[in-house]
Amino acid sequence: MTDFTDKLRPADPQGPSILAQERSGSNVNTDQLAKHLLSRNGFLNRQQKVLAILEPIPIFCKKNQLNMARPDRYHLSLARSKALRRLSIKHGWERDDYLMADYLMDEMSPYALQSTMFLTSVREQCNEEQKAYWLPKAENFDIIGCYGQTELGHGSNVKGIECQAKWDPKLKEFIIHSPTITASKWWNGALGRTANHAIVVAQLLLPNVTDGKLKSYGPHQFIVQIRDMKTNKPLEGIVIGDIGPKYGYPGMDNGYMLFENFRVPHSALLSRYSGVNPDTGAYIRPENPAVVYGSLTYVRAQIIMHARLVLARAVTVAVRYLSIRRQFVDRDTKDPGAPEQAVLNYPTVQVRILPLIATTFALHYTGEAMYKLYYGTRQEIEESGDFSRLAEMHAASSGLKSLCTTLAADGIETCRRAMGGHGFGGGSGMIALNNEYLSKPTVEGDNWMITQQTAAYLIKRMTEVFNNSELKATDSVDAQFQDFVRSHQVQQNFSINSDIDLVRAFRHRASYLTYQLYQARVVQKLPWTDLMLSLHRLSRAYSESLLVTNFYNAVFESQLNPPVDDATVNVMKNLYRLFAIYTLDNSSSEFLLSKALQTERLQYLTPRLQELMKENRPHAVRLVDAWSIPDYVLESALGSYDGDVYNRLFHKAHKENPLNLQTFNPDWRSEEIVMGEGEESARKRLEALALGVTGHEQAMNPRSKL
Amino acid sequence: MTDFTDKLRPADPQGPSILAQERSGSNVNTDQLAKHLLSRNGFLNRQQKVLAILEPIPIFCKKNQLNMARPDRYHLSLARSKALRRLSIKHGWERDDYLMADYLMDEMSPYALQSTMFLTSVREQCNEEQKAYWLPKAENFDIIGCYGQTELGHGSNVKGIECQAKWDPKLKEFIIHSPTITASKWWNGALGRTANHAIVVAQLLLPNVTDGKLKSYGPHQFIVQIRDMKTNKPLEGIVIGDIGPKYGYPGMDNGYMLFENFRVPHSALLSRYSGVNPDTGAYIRPENPAVVYGSLTYVRAQIIMHARLVLARAVTVAVRYLSIRRQFVDRDTKDPGAPEQAVLNYPTVQVRILPLIATTFALHYTGEAMYKLYYGTRQEIEESGDFSRLAEMHAASSGLKSLCTTLAADGIETCRRAMGGHGFGGGSGMIALNNEYLSKPTVEGDNWMITQQTAAYLIKRMTEVFNNSELKATDSVDAQFQDFVRSHQVQQNFSINSDIDLVRAFRHRASYLTYQLYQARVVQKLPWTDLMLSLHRLSRAYSESLLVTNFYNAVFESQLNPPVDDATVNVMKNLYRLFAIYTLDNSSSEFLLSKALQTERLQYLTPRLQELMKENRPHAVRLVDAWSIPDYVLESALGSYDGDVYNRLFHKAHKENPLNLQTFNPDWRSEEIVMGEGEESARKRLEALALGVTGHEQAMNPRSKL
Repeated sequence: MTDFTDKLRPADPQGPSILAQERSGSNVNTDQLAKHLLSRNGFLNRQQKVLAILEPIPIFCKKNQLNMARPDRYHLSLARSKALRRLSIKHGWERDDYLMADYLMDEMSPYALQSTMFLTSVREQCNEEQKAYWLPKAENFDIIGCYGQTELGHGSNVKGIECQAKWDPKLKEFIIHSPTITASKWWNGALGRTANHAIVVAQLLLPNVTDGKLKSYGPHQFIVQIRDMKTNKPLEGIVIGDIGPKYGYPGMDNGYMLFENFRVPHSALLSRYSGVNPDTGAYIRPENPAVVYGSLTYVRAQIIMHARLVLARAVTVAVRYLSIRRQFVDRDTKDPGAPEQAVLNYPTVQVRILPLIATTFALHYTGEAMYKLYYGTRQEIEESGDFSRLAEMHAASSGLKSLCTTLAADGIETCRRAMGGHGFGGGSGMIALNNEYLSKPTVEGDNWMITQQTAAYLIKRMTEVFNNSELKATDSVDAQFQDFVRSHQVQQNFSINSDIDLVRAFRHRASYLTYQLYQARVVQKLPWTDLMLSLHRLSRAYSESLLVTNFYNAVFESQLNPPVDDATVNVMKNLYRLFAIYTLDNSSSEFLLSKALQTERLQYLTPRLQELMKENRPHAVRLVDAWSIPDYVLESALGSYDGDVYNRLFHKAHKENPLNLQTFNPDWRSEEIVMGEGEESARKRLEALALGVTGHEQAMNPRSKL
Repeated sequence: MTDFTDKLRPADPQGPSILAQERSGSNVNTDQLAKHLLSRNGFLNRQQKVLAILEPIPIFCKKNQLNMARPDRYHLSLARSKALRRLSIKHGWERDDYLMADYLMDEMSPYALQSTMFLTSVREQCNEEQKAYWLPKAENFDIIGCYGQTELGHGSNVKGIECQAKWDPKLKEFIIHSPTITASKWWNGALGRTANHAIVVAQLLLPNVTDGKLKSYGPHQFIVQIRDMKTNKPLEGIVIGDIGPKYGYPGMDNGYMLFENFRVPHSALLSRYSGVNPDTGAYIRPENPAVVYGSLTYVRAQIIMHARLVLARAVTVAVRYLSIRRQFVDRDTKDPGAPEQAVLNYPTVQVRILPLIATTFALHYTGEAMYKLYYGTRQEIEESGDFSRLAEMHAASSGLKSLCTTLAADGIETCRRAMGGHGFGGGSGMIALNNEYLSKPTVEGDNWMITQQTAAYLIKRMTEVFNNSELKATDSVDAQFQDFVRSHQVQQNFSINSDIDLVRAFRHRASYLTYQLYQARVVQKLPWTDLMLSLHRLSRAYSESLLVTNFYNAVFESQLNPPVDDATVNVMKNLYRLFAIYTLDNSSSEFLLSKALQTERLQYLTPRLQELMKENRPHAVRLVDAWSIPDYVLESALGSYDGDVYNRLFHKAHKENPLNLQTFNPDWRSEEIVMGEGEESARKRLEALALGVTGHEQAMNPRSKL
């Protein structure tokens, strides 16, 4: 299809030349910085290697995804899952290659649970015998698994789930049963149409030896075959389905599942830490109940590391597009021919985008610190049965999960909105990113619920510290609180121009809020529920202090590793300042209340923020370049590396939109829609579309489409 | 399809009995309040009347919408548009009935621009002759119109658009031309596949009488036939298409359009206020250039009124579901059998939802005030050519458009996130609402750009007031600034417990920020661009003071009209307090800086907020009931009036999900996807899906589907 638009080009200045200019105007060493950020597990090389394999394969093409019906999107996603597994074998991929392919493909696929929740449960919750049986099957994808914990009626409160697993002492089997509609498993990925096996979390019910009355021992994990291996139909006594469309993840079959007295053998109960004696029917207690949720904690740590890359992606698109986009002429110019300004030069745009660049780095260094903490704790548990750091890990991971996913989710939308009209279009590449990431503040611990765990830990430590002046500090929190207890009545007057004072101010504020809650809860014994708002604020304050502290430690205290040159380090230091000042400004009244800051200092915050934004602005494009997000992942006309924004946007609409292949009849007097189709057929077709397809399987069968 | 799930019901307590209890626990008079809020233009009765007509018609059924491919969604939406027009004639609907149907149908449809932007331009920008020709055609829908202003390269900066309309003095015609790709019209609703006529905004270029050189007279509106009335194909010299998928509005064909030296007659230029003399080619100047954007201002006023109802919808769903949803047992209970708590009882949930209930009312009263201001100003212009209030109206409408759409957009997402997992699912009814409303902070004036207009107006008034102590106040802003100038150095110490003091505090803060900017801009002459951040904050502060003031005036100063009983008025007063305290708390440091509040008062804000939340909590369900959003509009299993949440959610998934009609092959060794389809056909089908349909028109033709 050729027409007169083929010879047109965008008005000057051209995007590619603008980005070239932006890149030449900064001394950030992008290559060094990329290696510094992305060398863990050979990320950068792996990305290049796997990308070269995926990109040319037709079914991995992403450009038509937003036009497709939900059932088709699942079909495509299942096909991709299967193809990835075959590629994995063909190219001898290791696990990290496979995860890289998943990341590049950028969709939650029906096999996604296999290598995460399902395999993690098998590895961590099975006893040796169970592991020997299930692990090879799962690792070879001979079975496809999912993880069935959440129910229609219960999410965060795992203890409240209704699905039951009753022990039948006669047949020595468990009977899995859903007593209500709300007991239905719900949301579980890959369950809806794909998986033939599931980890089912159910209330373990054992009959009392004395009277045979059932007693609940709380939620336990069972491994259960749920579909026939030949037909993939649900087994007798199980009802399964896909729960339907949701904000994102159209290619994933999140499912529901109910059981009617469905029997599984004794070996179905995953028994590494706890179990049931098959002879006596007695419960075997876990040594430490916290371990039961080990796999959830692992997933939470990964979420924190993921947040930085997702935010980096949104910021990459925003920075490149907003450098290119021109808007108004400077209001103060006298020159009638003055050029329009780059939108990124407006302070009102900078204040939304530049702090988010800084946030990607803040998240990175805290992610790195979290990994260290997680693996360290894990090793102590595995090697020496030492659980002592579990509480600290849990407290930090909960608060940080909450804060980091909120920052990323809000940050994505902030980037999108800053891009104005084109940010709302499919060419932005933001739709799936935005809609899908909105799940993160909820999954793996709701962001407003889990902060209680962080706050509870802090109050506990403050209680110890306050009441025992001789206490030997066991972790960094103790030491921080000891400092605070000595000085908390004194106005601190930290300087917003001192790098280390910013760290001190954040720590002081967190300590102050902890102390207030210690007073309210421990001394005045106020009801927990009444304190929830303050508990949440404390968790945020503490988590922000961790982000600021880790960022500071990384760029001021230690040699960056892998190293970057001094010019780049200096830019990183300025990003630290921007992050700290911006974050402080957002909660300034808490800093006043805690006496970390004097009211008179408030007026200097905005000028300082503007100064830092001006200093960071020239490096914006190179900083996002360092995150090395491939165009294939961005899938964005606005954010592509080359900056050819308008040609890409126009091409996408003019050459790739299936709607443009039809001509319509807009006249209201006629029922006809597509020109020439006839009124009767139009009416039938549209009614079927509107009413859905119940009982019309043939009509929706994709085989009849092509 | 029957199975064992048919006999199951949700665990107790049942949703309907919970909502009944909630409703009986409040003395808010829902019926009175509904009439009070929704009597304008007979809204409530009209809603009932039109709903009864729409709901039984098959193509107006909404339940399958989220499963459909984009092209199908447009087909359905076009069919609905056409059917609505036929219904309109059949039932003798007046314009408000038709708009009600549009509201209830709840999708931006291909006819949506006809009755708004297109007709408004015809009515307001045509001279009498033009109006006589075009108005009947447009009102009868003999032609279908759209409004083509925004371009690929220009949105907010209308003056920068590139599309040209060159006057040809020989043939006495305009030549409409797109010199670049970025000159392409873009985003314009109904343009993509539907409209046969367009209002085209183009730079008017007239040749100088002396040297024939073209000179631009800025953007003007032209009415242009763009498609053939028989075939609906674009006319020769025009390229048109749909721009592709976007966040929301799948049923709307937002389009692009380029012209290649396309000729239109002299009469195409809409000439009520300005024009071109066809004989001399001389420009006829408008008396007041601001009138050119009259239709935009009208749309902006409507957006403000719309925001309240959209937010009310999100809050309705959230309040009903969160009253029903149970989560944890009270942490402090000693009773092992204690019931789980309603999620809405958590302060961490209340703080997100209850202030938003209050916000719906704040928006309402300011919307009412805006209507008065708009119609009053309009009348003055029409009747006596008096433009004096245009500046004030524009300032207020800009700042309020920005604030109100931001509050609604953020509020919708806050509601959604508060609903946890089910908030992310299609059963929430939030997906389209959320995705579509996200356009509002951008369209009709970007929320971060138009605040400059508000701030500029305020600075101008402050300059007058500060430099002329004798000034006779011409509007409420002047009087407010005069008060401030007298007292601005004095610590004010307004009480957060006094209703009128809250109004004073908001006004004082807005005045202070204006004064600061007067100093910076007028006295110190700082560059405008450097001040943008402060200008935006000022606009927000001023707009918040309008919301607080209008809310206060409505519930304290005047008799509510239509009236509500005292018990209900008292609840409204408490909602005012909640709104004011919550809003103040969010920007408390600005109140400190402006000396409206003392730092020591800060610590009382949270306790006061919690107190007000406790007092408002029992009325939550009745308050949202008063907004009278029908289930048909909510389209939400979580938010339906009856509260039967879990049965509805389950039914929707188990009986209405087309994906559940197929069985899949999850084995990675096979390319087959749907059981029994064969590997070769699967591969071909999936590749076509992934690559899209360019050149395969037949494959995507819906006629071949059924």
